[in-house]
Amino acid sequence: MEIIKNVKEMQKKASQAKKQGKKICFVPTMGFFHEGHITLMREGRKLADILAISIFVNPTQFSQGEDLDVYPRDLKGDIEKIKDIGVDWVFAPSASEMYPEGFQSYVIVEKVTRNLCGKFRPGHFRGVATICLKLFNIIKPDLAVFGEKDFQQLVTIKQMVKDLNLDLKVIGIPTVREKDGLAMSSRNIYLTPNERKKALAIFRSLKEANEMFKKGERKAIPIIKHVREILEKENGISIDYVQICDINTIEDIDKIDKKALLAVAVRIGSARLIDNIILGRD
Amino acid sequence: MEIIKNVKEMQKKASQAKKQGKKICFVPTMGFFHEGHITLMREGRKLADILAISIFVNPTQFSQGEDLDVYPRDLKGDIEKIKDIGVDWVFAPSASEMYPEGFQSYVIVEKVTRNLCGKFRPGHFRGVATICLKLFNIIKPDLAVFGEKDFQQLVTIKQMVKDLNLDLKVIGIPTVREKDGLAMSSRNIYLTPNERKKALAIFRSLKEANEMFKKGERKAIPIIKHVREILEKENGISIDYVQICDINTIEDIDKIDKKALLAVAVRIGSARLIDNIILGRD
Repeated sequence: MEIIKNVKEMQKKASQAKKQGKKICFVPTMGFFHEGHITLMREGRKLADILAISIFVNPTQFSQGEDLDVYPRDLKGDIEKIKDIGVDWVFAPSASEMYPEGFQSYVIVEKVTRNLCGKFRPGHFRGVATICLKLFNIIKPDLAVFGEKDFQQLVTIKQMVKDLNLDLKVIGIPTVREKDGLAMSSRNIYLTPNERKKALAIFRSLKEANEMFKKGERKAIPIIKHVREILEKENGISIDYVQICDINTIEDIDKIDKKALLAVAVRIGSARLIDNIILGRD
Repeated sequence: MEIIKNVKEMQKKASQAKKQGKKICFVPTMGFFHEGHITLMREGRKLADILAISIFVNPTQFSQGEDLDVYPRDLKGDIEKIKDIGVDWVFAPSASEMYPEGFQSYVIVEKVTRNLCGKFRPGHFRGVATICLKLFNIIKPDLAVFGEKDFQQLVTIKQMVKDLNLDLKVIGIPTVREKDGLAMSSRNIYLTPNERKKALAIFRSLKEANEMFKKGERKAIPIIKHVREILEKENGISIDYVQICDINTIEDIDKIDKKALLAVAVRIGSARLIDNIILGRD
């Protein structure tokens, strides 16, 4: 496992590997690893000759007033956690290495970023798309692996890859959960034990929604209403959104006549948590 | 010389060449070739194993009300004109091949596109940056060659390449002129013989400006004033701008204490023509 901090060095290494015909799989992360990240890496490990990951808390995807400054970081601990997974390259640049003075170019994916988190986090997906494109250009992957917990992010990256003719395949991996159902997230560390308990309502509400769907409910409104009721019962949960969307366009739908995304974002204490489930998938 | 119209086919060909260690040089064009294009290709031919060019009139770089529909096109004639230059690949896709339904991702280069043509052609540089990024991802060049006549475009592409970590070198080639000084442009075809004569005032004004600079003038205002006077003397020339800018930031400068861009855009009849000169270069 090599740790690389310099863009040119990383890019040169990637070029050489490509010239040797090596297949590269890439897992971009913001570090502070949990089992979700580890799962992405284990899946990635199976798919290519070289497994590259990045650890970079990307400032351009945080909106004003968000948690950029307090976002948890632990490079040493992260390296320790992944030492047996078979990661070949860890790309861990500084912010100034990625965004030198004079930086001014951004990627905008227009439609799929308008709804859900796009409404609450101005500039977020512009930052996500831009850093992913940069990392793709530096690491030159054949495959890139993303978690489905950030479903709108996954769709955004897939759209960008298609629209900009990036020669790589994007793979989504189902959300990894704690035993009690809470979706794994580096931001769970912001929760007090009491808030942590309340947060279980999120997955409980998604499961109940899925039961409604399985029993035949095909209208979005009653499902959304039920999810909101469960969440609103918990003191201290504030809802950003509960929506049912087309899984490709991320536009709201009224009637669920094919697989659909049920997505939730809430605030609990200082944490903003998101989760989702695909209705009709299993 | 192979003519390729399909994105996936072009991309596969490029990937294979890269794996064989071949160096690719790329000249993007909108076709309707004149000696300026040919010069870019001849220069490109010297620099790599494979010379790729594209012929594509890119709709996203034309603003509302501009000349997209009447822009001259002549694929057969173009192919004939370049048959002895040693072009390996001509990538000539359709608009729907490059912008299929649902297309929604764009690259924005913020600062260097604000001034000059950026003020007069809303969305132009967004379209230019986006199509160039797409073409770079399809053709995978090690080098890309652009003409200096579109100086702001050249600076925009250089900035994008740097910011987004594209692994390629951008090369600018000095403007090629007709014997009487008119900068070569596919849009010169819009000029009547009478307008064609008036258009000579553009390069004449740039040359006189350069003489002023050589004689010691270092303030922008008197030089700009002189250029405007020459242009305004011609009936039927309408000035979009005459400006002196930093060659890297494309910001206006008052005092010329290093190489500077003197850029002009005018309208003559139905043509919008641009030209420029680098003060202090020779």
